[in-house]
Amino acid sequence: MIRNYRNLRKLLLLAMMPTLAFAQQNNLKQYVKPLIGTAKMGHTFPGATVPFGAVQLSPDTDTIPYAVNGKYTGDVYKYCAGYQYDDPTIVGFSHTHFSGTGHSDLGDILVMPTQGKVQLNPGTADQPQSGYRSPYSHANETAEPNYYKVKLDKHQILAELTTTKRVGFHRYTFPKSDQSHLILDLTAGIYNYEGKNVWTVVRALNDSTITGYRQTNGWARTRTVYFAIRTSKPFKNYGAKYYDKNVQYKGFWRKFNQEDNFPDLAAHNIKMHLDFDTEDQEQVMMKVALSPVSMKNALENMDYETPDWNFEQTLKSGQDEWEKELQRFQVDMLNKEDLVNFYTSVYHANLMPTVYMDVNGEYKGLDQEVHKAEGFTNYTSFSLWDTFRAFHPWLNLVDPKRNADIVSSMMAHYDQSVLKMLPIWSHYANENWCMSGYHSVSVVVDAIMKGTYEGDAEAALAACVQTAKARRYEGIGEYMDLGYVPDDVNGTSVSNTLEYAYDDWCIAQLAKKLGKEDIAAEFSKRAENWRNLYDPSIGFMRPKDSKGVFRANFDVLDTHGQGFIEGNTWNYSLYVPHQPEQLMEVMGGQQKFESYLDSLFTMHLPDKYFANTEDITREGIIGNYVHGNEPSHHVAYLYNQTKSPWKTQERIRQIIRNQYHNGAAGLGGNDDCGQMSAWYLFSSLGFYPVAPGENVYWLGSPLVKSASIHLQNGRKLEVIAKNQSEKNMYVSKALWNGKEIKDFKINHEDIMAGGTLEFVMTAKPKK
Amino acid sequence: MIRNYRNLRKLLLLAMMPTLAFAQQNNLKQYVKPLIGTAKMGHTFPGATVPFGAVQLSPDTDTIPYAVNGKYTGDVYKYCAGYQYDDPTIVGFSHTHFSGTGHSDLGDILVMPTQGKVQLNPGTADQPQSGYRSPYSHANETAEPNYYKVKLDKHQILAELTTTKRVGFHRYTFPKSDQSHLILDLTAGIYNYEGKNVWTVVRALNDSTITGYRQTNGWARTRTVYFAIRTSKPFKNYGAKYYDKNVQYKGFWRKFNQEDNFPDLAAHNIKMHLDFDTEDQEQVMMKVALSPVSMKNALENMDYETPDWNFEQTLKSGQDEWEKELQRFQVDMLNKEDLVNFYTSVYHANLMPTVYMDVNGEYKGLDQEVHKAEGFTNYTSFSLWDTFRAFHPWLNLVDPKRNADIVSSMMAHYDQSVLKMLPIWSHYANENWCMSGYHSVSVVVDAIMKGTYEGDAEAALAACVQTAKARRYEGIGEYMDLGYVPDDVNGTSVSNTLEYAYDDWCIAQLAKKLGKEDIAAEFSKRAENWRNLYDPSIGFMRPKDSKGVFRANFDVLDTHGQGFIEGNTWNYSLYVPHQPEQLMEVMGGQQKFESYLDSLFTMHLPDKYFANTEDITREGIIGNYVHGNEPSHHVAYLYNQTKSPWKTQERIRQIIRNQYHNGAAGLGGNDDCGQMSAWYLFSSLGFYPVAPGENVYWLGSPLVKSASIHLQNGRKLEVIAKNQSEKNMYVSKALWNGKEIKDFKINHEDIMAGGTLEFVMTAKPKK
Repeated sequence: MIRNYRNLRKLLLLAMMPTLAFAQQNNLKQYVKPLIGTAKMGHTFPGATVPFGAVQLSPDTDTIPYAVNGKYTGDVYKYCAGYQYDDPTIVGFSHTHFSGTGHSDLGDILVMPTQGKVQLNPGTADQPQSGYRSPYSHANETAEPNYYKVKLDKHQILAELTTTKRVGFHRYTFPKSDQSHLILDLTAGIYNYEGKNVWTVVRALNDSTITGYRQTNGWARTRTVYFAIRTSKPFKNYGAKYYDKNVQYKGFWRKFNQEDNFPDLAAHNIKMHLDFDTEDQEQVMMKVALSPVSMKNALENMDYETPDWNFEQTLKSGQDEWEKELQRFQVDMLNKEDLVNFYTSVYHANLMPTVYMDVNGEYKGLDQEVHKAEGFTNYTSFSLWDTFRAFHPWLNLVDPKRNADIVSSMMAHYDQSVLKMLPIWSHYANENWCMSGYHSVSVVVDAIMKGTYEGDAEAALAACVQTAKARRYEGIGEYMDLGYVPDDVNGTSVSNTLEYAYDDWCIAQLAKKLGKEDIAAEFSKRAENWRNLYDPSIGFMRPKDSKGVFRANFDVLDTHGQGFIEGNTWNYSLYVPHQPEQLMEVMGGQQKFESYLDSLFTMHLPDKYFANTEDITREGIIGNYVHGNEPSHHVAYLYNQTKSPWKTQERIRQIIRNQYHNGAAGLGGNDDCGQMSAWYLFSSLGFYPVAPGENVYWLGSPLVKSASIHLQNGRKLEVIAKNQSEKNMYVSKALWNGKEIKDFKINHEDIMAGGTLEFVMTAKPKK
Repeated sequence: MIRNYRNLRKLLLLAMMPTLAFAQQNNLKQYVKPLIGTAKMGHTFPGATVPFGAVQLSPDTDTIPYAVNGKYTGDVYKYCAGYQYDDPTIVGFSHTHFSGTGHSDLGDILVMPTQGKVQLNPGTADQPQSGYRSPYSHANETAEPNYYKVKLDKHQILAELTTTKRVGFHRYTFPKSDQSHLILDLTAGIYNYEGKNVWTVVRALNDSTITGYRQTNGWARTRTVYFAIRTSKPFKNYGAKYYDKNVQYKGFWRKFNQEDNFPDLAAHNIKMHLDFDTEDQEQVMMKVALSPVSMKNALENMDYETPDWNFEQTLKSGQDEWEKELQRFQVDMLNKEDLVNFYTSVYHANLMPTVYMDVNGEYKGLDQEVHKAEGFTNYTSFSLWDTFRAFHPWLNLVDPKRNADIVSSMMAHYDQSVLKMLPIWSHYANENWCMSGYHSVSVVVDAIMKGTYEGDAEAALAACVQTAKARRYEGIGEYMDLGYVPDDVNGTSVSNTLEYAYDDWCIAQLAKKLGKEDIAAEFSKRAENWRNLYDPSIGFMRPKDSKGVFRANFDVLDTHGQGFIEGNTWNYSLYVPHQPEQLMEVMGGQQKFESYLDSLFTMHLPDKYFANTEDITREGIIGNYVHGNEPSHHVAYLYNQTKSPWKTQERIRQIIRNQYHNGAAGLGGNDDCGQMSAWYLFSSLGFYPVAPGENVYWLGSPLVKSASIHLQNGRKLEVIAKNQSEKNMYVSKALWNGKEIKDFKINHEDIMAGGTLEFVMTAKPKK
């Protein structure tokens, strides 16, 4: 399917190439294709949202439960974003979605317009008539920034979705019917299972307003989404069903029929239907506002952000917001596909983290208390293991104000943490502890080193140090004592050691900047800890037990059970981004290192190992280089320190061409909250932050023909790639403001001062 | 057991009588025996609390679950107050208890000091060594206002409890041990069952501070109690266990051992242990503050109310508060038992409703939102079917400011109600819908008629009217259409009809006062609806179906299944408190009415009917008159309108002597949140509010020899019973400020102006 699609695309592109390579500057959003990444492993969602919006109103094509009767279904992983392009039916439209994650939650407040008999069960994809879901066709589907439209074939209803930051705005065009409904399935969710719904409250304030909340225990342990719903037309009737077992006190039932127009509902599991008479082509609109704090805040959010029923205006204003984000980048590319990939990457790098705060500034903190964000916008959903690499550096470059707020949000998280730790992978006032390292440290340090975060740097350093000394977390205690995480203590001991060492180096950088010599010395020493797990006898990083003995049975190709997470040692052994030269030395010098890199990109990875590689499609791999997972994102740039920087250029172009396409299956792995997209954006401009925490970018091979980027400080970064073409992927010369760059590096400060980065491209590698 | 106890008491009293009949005015709290009512059906709690305090820190002697595997255990009812005097073991000390209810909830945050091996299971009463519970002996138990002390035999620990409004203050004297513990059972509760705990959060902020919350679904559907805990001594170690089944996402467990000193806990069911080394006789103190709103508010409550570790001072200040409440009543009685009964009744009438608001004024509303109480203290736990009769009228007399706040709290409830109804039986931001009628109306109206509530009377009237027109509630719609609740629509159709009619009369009184003639007319008409269910053919109120046909098979003695709640038609037929003369007329005139009353008090009620009479012991019945339940509380006063008011006097004295004793089993029925006690207080002063809503009291037979009551307006009510004695129970003459009362009535306004109510007592009834 993918391959067919791609061939079709290639043919189309060949036809278009001469005319469509230049961006239409007044309408850049036309290049954004939210459907990219919605097939297979991309895990993006196609629905409507504004940049970093708290609401992601998007179709869910299935709701496969995490487990049935305690047994893991295995299929839930597909539905991290709720939507899979190849699915034939739409279950409904829910209001919260992660973009590109490899685990999930959310899918809150699922709405489905239907007509005919009230059905409160979603039914199955192969028998959509068995429930409220509907078949649909991609021919009748449109996905644009902040706009999603689809025809629901079974119900003959046209669904249109748009949003503001905190409000999902639905418009449904019904046929003539005296049985038109809006189904409100408050039991639905992503990564759902029986018992996930901890509690649900619903209050029908009048015949067109409903408030409530959904409290869940899932990836986020204690998560509550408060909502307020209004319909443009009063419902003539409404009803509810409870799906709770074992209800003991039945006082409410004795006095009231809670199923029929009863406005005061509370149970673990509730589904509702709102009923209408509709004329042919009558539009019924619905607004659903969310809040992390309270129902009244949700109502306030709604009243503030969508004071009226002007769907078109809401749509336009969200699209204008997108256009403004996109307009910061004026690029010329080789063809339209590249424009689509570029602007869709900008789009995907503008989705997460999301605003987690009401219009009045209130938010729920990690401590489960209500806080008021003073002087910053509070964000949530930090997929830090992914995003510290290129996404946050990207914000430091193009959207530093937002990144400063993100750091403020992380510091608030720290202040609220009873464990006194910066976030690992946090969302919705919870820490979910996913993945390895303590990469908040990298984000915080990089933001301070680059002048992005202007808050209390000493407090930030203290938070980083405290986090890095959380002895009970993932072998940190042993790491501090032995210089590495022992294999017998932790299942991902090598990834952890390597990532801690990098994070520690970040801390040392900040400590130096602040003149904290003792901290700098302590963490500079820790930054060398990667050395402790390098086994020169095999030339790889290798798990070692507490007694100092390397693991005997060790498979250098396997990703699972070898002491790593989402990467084998072939990839992970290169994870010393802060000391690449020292790594090269340890690995036997330039020549050996170069041939190691060559092998990585060219060797054959047997299928059995691929099966163990998470989160990516077969296309997400080049040789044994895994682009679909993050640990190697800096690797192609490492040729720069060998005698063959042209190989960086070649590999970067190869990865771009191989891994980013504009079809639904266009992403070879999870977009990971913008990290994959940020890699693309940096790389297509010709440079990349190999080690966030130092203000240096390493050069690669630009994909743009030219780019003009409006920086927030009013300066402009121009990138020009002379003689750019598909074949001219090599850089014969690079210049900054006319001065040749000899070391394949450029400083952040230089870029921020504005100027022109010029590449002279050639088809001939400079060997 | 009761009888033995009572005989012992009688002997003791005979010995004491000559000397101890006069209250020691500087120490009235000595007469309060919180243990009264803790055996059998009284359902009072013996623990520590301040007047109307939010915390009731009291021992629980068992935690029998409501149901096991979905099967009702039947025994839970005993434990409405957590403590049963005859039980041999104490399970622990929890922080919230209703006083005298017939259903329950609460029992939050159970603490048990132990030593030896950590046991997190309570164990069973017959095998206390199987868990953390301990045997104890009444000889080692002391219960005073705001002080409870008991020796825990198994653990050799002396437990002492005191409180402030929002803080439970524990002091435990341990033996020497390196295994001393405080067990924190957050799964424990009253009326508990599997699944009642909806969610629990615990955060150990440091080695002596813990915050958290317990969210339950029980009698209150959506209830959350937030808490903050501090210990006087750091715990050397702590731990937790989760008792959840079917936990799907285990991220926390993968990264942390949550059982061992882990500060960040959340699950459905959590138990904890805090561990200490203790020297011999070392006292470890603990404070537990509650909040309806947040953990931080709980901490703020603690810091504000108990800024230090002075147990003695906290105890004294709460006891001083009690003394102040008691000092408003200076009474002389015939003997010390009467002093005990009187002041214990004052005590029991000062427990509920309870403050439901933090020191910063915040509280959780019925709408599940956080509100700030502006200009009033917010109260919760309104057992209105009981308390409208004498308890709220009692407050109107002796503590009107508090009753005004209670009415404000009820109005806030109304404003927050999506059903637009005043409370029926509400607690902790929930409506539990227990019992019949809409008696908030009576409380609101009485408070306005008596000048107690000075808020917006028109808004209050509107709330009453709206509540009385809630068509879907308990047959109100049919009641409005037909003039009675039909038997085929509602299982307690007669009680409802009679009670609605009385409540409607209340509304009419207020409407008249406010000049709302149309409302007055409408509700005056509704106030006559009791007539529609009187069946002259049998001389009783009787269920009637929607077609107007009286029920064929009807048992006038049975309480169950006959259209009534907590009363048979013998008792309920007299429930027309607002139109007693009209009732008398309908029932055949004075003579017939009097003989009906005579029969009620003297007839034999076969045992099979007693078994169907809820909430009372066998002693709670005189003939067929049931004092342990409320519907007949006004009945003895009805002789006043016959030619034999002396029978009122005789019966009142009989009821007092029969129903109120100073042993643990001293109450023949549930105290019902102070209603039984308020009946005693009024009656022992010689008058009673037969129909709250009119500012009239009916005279009975005083029990006091004299009483001096300090009214809140600075005036004084003196009651003098000349020639008072056990035999002189009849009133030969009654005078108000020297003027003889001819009609056995006295006005509220007259009393509030201050003065002397003089009774001349005699042994000879004035026939």
